[in-house]
Amino acid sequence: MAGTNSELPLIAEGPVIILVNPQLGENIGMVARAMANFGLAELRLVDPRDGWPSDTARAAASKADHVIDGASVHDSLADAIADLNFVYATTARSRDGFKPVRGPSVAARTLRTRYRGGERTGILFGRERWGLNNEEVGMADEIVTFPVNPAFASLNIAQAVLLMSYEWMKSGMEDESQTPFQAVEQTPATKQDLFGFFGHLEEALDARGYFRPADKKPRMIDNLRSVFTRRAMSMQEIHLLRGVISSLDRYSRKNPRGGEGSDG
Amino acid sequence: MAGTNSELPLIAEGPVIILVNPQLGENIGMVARAMANFGLAELRLVDPRDGWPSDTARAAASKADHVIDGASVHDSLADAIADLNFVYATTARSRDGFKPVRGPSVAARTLRTRYRGGERTGILFGRERWGLNNEEVGMADEIVTFPVNPAFASLNIAQAVLLMSYEWMKSGMEDESQTPFQAVEQTPATKQDLFGFFGHLEEALDARGYFRPADKKPRMIDNLRSVFTRRAMSMQEIHLLRGVISSLDRYSRKNPRGGEGSDG
Repeated sequence: MAGTNSELPLIAEGPVIILVNPQLGENIGMVARAMANFGLAELRLVDPRDGWPSDTARAAASKADHVIDGASVHDSLADAIADLNFVYATTARSRDGFKPVRGPSVAARTLRTRYRGGERTGILFGRERWGLNNEEVGMADEIVTFPVNPAFASLNIAQAVLLMSYEWMKSGMEDESQTPFQAVEQTPATKQDLFGFFGHLEEALDARGYFRPADKKPRMIDNLRSVFTRRAMSMQEIHLLRGVISSLDRYSRKNPRGGEGSDG
Repeated sequence: MAGTNSELPLIAEGPVIILVNPQLGENIGMVARAMANFGLAELRLVDPRDGWPSDTARAAASKADHVIDGASVHDSLADAIADLNFVYATTARSRDGFKPVRGPSVAARTLRTRYRGGERTGILFGRERWGLNNEEVGMADEIVTFPVNPAFASLNIAQAVLLMSYEWMKSGMEDESQTPFQAVEQTPATKQDLFGFFGHLEEALDARGYFRPADKKPRMIDNLRSVFTRRAMSMQEIHLLRGVISSLDRYSRKNPRGGEGSDG
């Protein structure tokens, strides 16, 4: 299921992802894949341990080749962010200092606003084992950190990039309840449609003596109708349910163990 | 940096994660780690290809042992969800049918509301290569899908679990701008503090003949003050800047190449 589909729009924009001293090619590849999943494209590597290019990274990227091919290598973090206007540092640890600390969704909205204003932005991610040092965090404008389980707080680098990329994608949506596809479109039923259905059902049940004893009938009808009024029904659902009732009401069972009238 | 820290609270609650026919132990382990990161704990496996327990899974879980040890294996999906009240199916593909389709944050808030109401909930994730089949999706109450890059839409199973776990954690926060730690607390400066700083700076500059020609002085002061009024300053920042001015103003350079009064 991985890889690009050339018939669909490829989103490739937004903040630069900067990995400081990444150790494993596999992690770099998973970072590239996560970026591609959520429409980011520009990857910069500061002094990657095992050099670059990396076959391991390409394999782990699951065909996010546009990210791998576009990645650049830099000797220093200062060089890697020289052309950017606004940079976040990701860290799981509290730091001394005056820098504002943001959650991922607030940070993503800030990045989106600055991106729309024409600024070049970036997000720094540290080494697999110990993250960013204080000097590196100091080069960023603000800090972003994740709301994690206090006793199990360590995210790997690809997971951290995934979450920021995902929040970036969400920050571009007009409404976060938007989904890439929707349920089959249905026409809301009117109350008249609903009452027609009730009449159909209750008539079929009445014909079989379902409402016994007679003085309980109003209460039984109330309860039965409640089942179908807990949420607004669609025309399609009412049509389907009326088909069910017609089938039960009009046709005898084909199963020999049942026999006619077995639902009476 | 991975593993549990027994001095901090371990969150272990919320929806059950159900993996249908997972193939690779490594993926199961990364799922367990992602769950632990965001406070989920209960993992169920439907017919895992390579059996259970799995050393590969345990290794990939980076010490999320409480999730691995608590995982249960089931022959069928129906069995795995038998005790649950409300279940989401994750899918990247549009399906025929009436089921509502939600984005991850809406789904997480629904799960949180039901959890708080005492319901048992779960989220289904399909096979690595082709997800869930229609019958399996049919067993869920609603569908959840991710806002991805249309041309690069495939998330791996551990990434999908990570995003839902993260949204679950966020759904429990009163305010999504909350962060696990904050910047060093600072006292907002008053305008009087700010004007005191301006006076200090401008006096030091004036003594050196900075404001030349004299008729430009008001405009130069306007511009200088603008630099420091673009955002509200804290007392700590003003204190720090006054220290800088005092240092430049009162002490001569120690660097022999500079010499006294070199900043004039």
